[in-house]
Amino acid sequence: MAIPNLQVALDHLRIEDALKDALAVGSEVDIIEAGTILILNEGDKAIKCLRNVFPDKVVIADTKCADAGSTVAKNCKDAGADWMTVICCATIPTMKAAQKEIGTLQVELYGDWTFEQAEQWREAGIDQVIYHQSRDALFAGATWTESDLNKIKRLIEMGFKVSATGGLTKDTLKVFEGIDIYTFIAGRGIYATENPAQSAREFKEEIRRIWG
Amino acid sequence: MAIPNLQVALDHLRIEDALKDALAVGSEVDIIEAGTILILNEGDKAIKCLRNVFPDKVVIADTKCADAGSTVAKNCKDAGADWMTVICCATIPTMKAAQKEIGTLQVELYGDWTFEQAEQWREAGIDQVIYHQSRDALFAGATWTESDLNKIKRLIEMGFKVSATGGLTKDTLKVFEGIDIYTFIAGRGIYATENPAQSAREFKEEIRRIWG
Repeated sequence: MAIPNLQVALDHLRIEDALKDALAVGSEVDIIEAGTILILNEGDKAIKCLRNVFPDKVVIADTKCADAGSTVAKNCKDAGADWMTVICCATIPTMKAAQKEIGTLQVELYGDWTFEQAEQWREAGIDQVIYHQSRDALFAGATWTESDLNKIKRLIEMGFKVSATGGLTKDTLKVFEGIDIYTFIAGRGIYATENPAQSAREFKEEIRRIWG
Repeated sequence: MAIPNLQVALDHLRIEDALKDALAVGSEVDIIEAGTILILNEGDKAIKCLRNVFPDKVVIADTKCADAGSTVAKNCKDAGADWMTVICCATIPTMKAAQKEIGTLQVELYGDWTFEQAEQWREAGIDQVIYHQSRDALFAGATWTESDLNKIKRLIEMGFKVSATGGLTKDTLKVFEGIDIYTFIAGRGIYATENPAQSAREFKEEIRRIWG
């Protein structure tokens, strides 16, 4: 079992604030994500800044693309993104169009997606999904359950690299012990702490302790 | 039956190009939409520009929000948007959170949504949906069918104001004759023509001819 990556999701309102936290934790994490909120506020400037500041990291544009896959993917790629996200209810033609432009696509799992749809994504050549506890669902009291973990295992069996995100802290990582998670994504759990760099290091240490 | 609105979707890559076309057609249309592509590239600047240029029009932020409804809605509202869109596979807590911030929400119908979900949106107080022919599905050969029209009628019976979009030209409007469409949304069908202002006028005239 490989050691899962650690990805920081920058969901700041403005790029200057995102950069500050990104610079604090950048050397500790494997993947840098321009979050949806940040992109909706700053546009492709957010991706361009992160690309220039982190030339050697994987930079993800979390567009949650639902349509116009080719155009959105081309824009993300031109701005310097390595990967981008699409929403699970996008049509297969949208996903294929995006995939063709940017190469690596991650399907964001929200709401009532099905394993039949997941089969179609695999058939379309997509091999990454992001299993989400919705931020709003978390606010409404949801948490990681056995059912979540079983779905993640089934997705891994189908050949997906699965990223897990939603309310993660270093103390919740052990819930996933024994599961071949590809990437853990954390945002405020890393940077909205007293010492973001230390928090990122602690995340990585806990990942290495469990999967190393 | 009321006369449907005409909405121009500005899916330009840059705000300066969007503004040029928006100014050409603005006086002819009822609703101005900052398209997803435009927002992903320009950020909230796109909404702010359209708000300032069109103080008396309804301005929509087509964010296709899937999560963090409260934050995204607050940002859109702060930038001057009157309404915003959420994607159909967003969770109900996300939709409620967005609705609470911005007041008027439109659910974008993509992929395999169900009427059971639509009932939940109505119960959450949401009364607008956007019935979509996906741009990528259109590229792949899809078109407006009897099945589309029947779903639109059923949504209207459920109490939704339904906007229709996807490959619309003034010549395709008659397909919807007899259906109480709330708004027709067109983008390139209006502004990517030789005379955008005239195209918008012809759209409006055809709408008035059929529904007037």
